[in-house]
Amino acid sequence: MPGHRLQPPVYFEFHATRRVEFSETDLAGIVHFSNFFRYMETVEHGFWRALGTSVVMAQYNPPLGLPRVHASCDFRRPLRFEDVFEMHLQVTEKKPRSLSFRIKFRRLEPGPIEDVAVGHLTIVCVAKAADGIMRAVAFPEEIAGQITVAPGTAVP
Amino acid sequence: MPGHRLQPPVYFEFHATRRVEFSETDLAGIVHFSNFFRYMETVEHGFWRALGTSVVMAQYNPPLGLPRVHASCDFRRPLRFEDVFEMHLQVTEKKPRSLSFRIKFRRLEPGPIEDVAVGHLTIVCVAKAADGIMRAVAFPEEIAGQITVAPGTAVP
Amino acid sequence: MPGHRLQPPVYFEFHATRRVEFSETDLAGIVHFSNFFRYMETVEHGFWRALGTSVVMAQYNPPLGLPRVHASCDFRRPLRFEDVFEMHLQVTEKKPRSLSFRIKFRRLEPGPIEDVAVGHLTIVCVAKAADGIMRAVAFPEEIAGQITVAPGTAVP
Amino acid sequence: MPGHRLQPPVYFEFHATRRVEFSETDLAGIVHFSNFFRYMETVEHGFWRALGTSVVMAQYNPPLGLPRVHASCDFRRPLRFEDVFEMHLQVTEKKPRSLSFRIKFRRLEPGPIEDVAVGHLTIVCVAKAADGIMRAVAFPEEIAGQITVAPGTAVP
Repeated sequence: MPGHRLQPPVYFEFHATRRVEFSETDLAGIVHFSNFFRYMETVEHGFWRALGTSVVMAQYNPPLGLPRVHASCDFRRPLRFEDVFEMHLQVTEKKPRSLSFRIKFRRLEPGPIEDVAVGHLTIVCVAKAADGIMRAVAFPEEIAGQITVAPGTAVP
Repeated sequence: MPGHRLQPPVYFEFHATRRVEFSETDLAGIVHFSNFFRYMETVEHGFWRALGTSVVMAQYNPPLGLPRVHASCDFRRPLRFEDVFEMHLQVTEKKPRSLSFRIKFRRLEPGPIEDVAVGHLTIVCVAKAADGIMRAVAFPEEIAGQITVAPGTAVP
Repeated sequence: MPGHRLQPPVYFEFHATRRVEFSETDLAGIVHFSNFFRYMETVEHGFWRALGTSVVMAQYNPPLGLPRVHASCDFRRPLRFEDVFEMHLQVTEKKPRSLSFRIKFRRLEPGPIEDVAVGHLTIVCVAKAADGIMRAVAFPEEIAGQITVAPGTAVP
Repeated sequence: MPGHRLQPPVYFEFHATRRVEFSETDLAGIVHFSNFFRYMETVEHGFWRALGTSVVMAQYNPPLGLPRVHASCDFRRPLRFEDVFEMHLQVTEKKPRSLSFRIKFRRLEPGPIEDVAVGHLTIVCVAKAADGIMRAVAFPEEIAGQITVAPGTAVP
């Protein structure tokens, strides 16, 4: 068909499931809140691998990195040792130099399935110049072109 | 003066200084963002000790705890290995069952002194019932009476 | 056959595979050595789940726990971000109140497959008395009966 | 006196005191064993600063690093939240390319003072070549010359 172009796959979400480890708990018997931020990052890094890249974008010159400029989490219920939980990452905002994600945490086991927490991350694409200074730059087109905002999440 | 009563000391802020440890850095050569949440908690726990208590309020029956229901951080500049930084915690909101804190991070060494990050925590006072369920309860009066909102921080 | 008794399954090893997470690296660009001890514990906890129990043996009264009394690791090669590695746990010593494990770490991806590290853990079975004191006790028979030393690993 | 030369200060030990943080505990209510390895490293890094250098020896070309090739710890008693403990590092072995340390942990508060754990670290001096490969090299003379084995600790 004239003018027909195949669209590349476009990504706006990622799921991961994980089991709580002993070293992630604290004396209150629940996952220490700081570990939700590690979990959020892990699911984000899975998102980057699903795109065929990595959060460490060493293939560019200068190399690009994706430091966080904002992270937050609202905690509704605790997670406990050996609980199995799901993380659902969605892209909520896309700008030339930054991306925002929302990550919903749900406990799967032991049941019943319950919402646990909701986190947010905003990351910026930076290039590390020869002088060691990091500067915000636009995401490479082949990466930006693969990402879109998840339906229904855009901030009005 | 008849009827005069000495006021107890009232607390609304706390400072702590700390040096970045090797295990707190990541492959980007900077403090991993999740550690800012550990740092925030450490300064908060210093605040509780300054009041003569602890975040683990085992002296009550049932014992009280202070889980976090919200945590966030905005990152402006990185911290690096062996940097010395200051944390300044202020009480920004006080309700019968919850408290909110703002924690400002400033790098002291190496100079020049620079703002690094600003975090927020909201904690809730809970009692752990015999059935293991945690329920929000009012802060004990002898604790609530020692705490006030820091001047100039109240949300309008 | 007269006198025939079915043997219960007996366990002496466990395998787990894992991918290095960003927060597990340090500024040298490799997994921080303390995380090998977390990894070791994670594979040990998988071993306990394979036996149908947990390192937190809350089904007993008083509850039993398995604190570590010795942990060591010899490091031959580093692990880096997003490497996939295998851990192979083997029971190397079995006493009434303690167990020793050896955990071999091998990098699987990126190839070639290489030995990375070898760790050892010794754990003790303890009961937590009502006075809060922990005392070493024998492993419950239904647990001890499922565990044997891995062939070829016994200390002469 | 002819030929007299002042000896430089020579170092063989280092002390540090620390308070257990909430995030360092686990659901058993005690410091997670992996954190003893972080603690050990922190006191070692204080030792390097006392010598006027850092575990990250960026002043050399190629830069030198001090990866761990062995780490172990024997645990006698637990540490709990807000305990204050002392770490006493001693140099136990000195070779051209490696150093070994012993670190004794003692709880100071709450009393009585008790031995808690004893750890060992062996580190190797490595240079990171332009091809990224790390090779063991001798410690620089100005560093090696400042370090000696602690009296009474040498392995016979």
